[in-house]
Amino acid sequence: MQEHQIPVTPRTQFHRKEGRRATDRDTLYRILDSEALAHVGFVRNGRPVVIPFAFGRDGDTLILHGSTGAGTFLDARDGLDVSISVARLTSLVYARSAFDSAMDYESVVIFGTARLVPTERKAAALRAFTEHLMPGRWAEVREMTAKEIAATSVLEVPLDEVSVKVRDVGFGDSPDDGEDRTVWAGVLPLRRVVEDPITATSVPDAVDVPASVGLAARRFGWRD
Amino acid sequence: MQEHQIPVTPRTQFHRKEGRRATDRDTLYRILDSEALAHVGFVRNGRPVVIPFAFGRDGDTLILHGSTGAGTFLDARDGLDVSISVARLTSLVYARSAFDSAMDYESVVIFGTARLVPTERKAAALRAFTEHLMPGRWAEVREMTAKEIAATSVLEVPLDEVSVKVRDVGFGDSPDDGEDRTVWAGVLPLRRVVEDPITATSVPDAVDVPASVGLAARRFGWRD
Repeated sequence: MQEHQIPVTPRTQFHRKEGRRATDRDTLYRILDSEALAHVGFVRNGRPVVIPFAFGRDGDTLILHGSTGAGTFLDARDGLDVSISVARLTSLVYARSAFDSAMDYESVVIFGTARLVPTERKAAALRAFTEHLMPGRWAEVREMTAKEIAATSVLEVPLDEVSVKVRDVGFGDSPDDGEDRTVWAGVLPLRRVVEDPITATSVPDAVDVPASVGLAARRFGWRD
Repeated sequence: MQEHQIPVTPRTQFHRKEGRRATDRDTLYRILDSEALAHVGFVRNGRPVVIPFAFGRDGDTLILHGSTGAGTFLDARDGLDVSISVARLTSLVYARSAFDSAMDYESVVIFGTARLVPTERKAAALRAFTEHLMPGRWAEVREMTAKEIAATSVLEVPLDEVSVKVRDVGFGDSPDDGEDRTVWAGVLPLRRVVEDPITATSVPDAVDVPASVGLAARRFGWRD
């Protein structure tokens, strides 16, 4: 179990806007738990590579999964030094000048070592991964087979060295461009919504949309 | 001007699912032009760093901007080797098993060298950046001052070495788990919407919401 406050390390220091740092793990969890894609960066042949992955969170561990044949997972056999970004834009902020215009956003940057989850913990890690992306689904479907588990690689990254940054002030702290009140200023909020589920044609009419779909809609549809 | 087809390089080869590659620049532009955040990875002291940035697209150039004091921009004085990811989840795909469940997504991965835009082209680059994020806004506000331009660093990355990957088949190609028709299967579409703009309290009633806000809503609100 981690300390509830997130410590600052040399790599998670900000050069500026220190006031936008969130230091509590609840904010970290809140952002991660309503996102599904993580941008995973690592060094290959001395050069940077960033690849998007679906992710799950299990306590203070980030879980990535993919095919055993995917390059990143081969790279990670001996532990892979990674930096991972998860971020979303929440508003465009229209000031009275281009220079003062801004955005509200929420972002998480993680530094750590991605390691392959050993066989004996793989089923549990896949369950946590699935429950992040499709909460409640694990109980609605059959168990994963040994063959399916063997065909899947799972990486875990500890949420130890993390920076969390939030700008949610809207127009609040935008400088005001003199007395020109003829120029509109304000905020355009962006939100993710979940549309109605589309049932596969092979599903009989008698089978209802399950509870898990409603849970995913609550997880990934932003609420104020 | 680039060839319209995107060439495949050693770094943009896929290890698998080659069929999901989009090779046309129109798809590249379509994805980038409805997104605002890019996850920029580079190597610092031999280790990976990934940081989210707002971006703009100007033809076949990606534009990043920030304060002259920000660390990444100092790193880029002599050209910075980067990999950049822009991606979005478009649907959760519920198969009849956890293993066969999937996602629809659209992603762009860029490799290249980020270079500081020289002073004489900075104003034009800032205009293109602003027009990406707030289309139409440039004409509604006063010109940027020389002091404002000087306080801003702008990086450009050519869109030469790029991979574009799209899965948009929904439930279409999901394997079917035997004859168990009691388990629901289908697709949960995720969309980004733009809410009503919020006018700053300092704006007089006579000032209407400008055309640029409607253009941003069309740009960033997903449409089918």
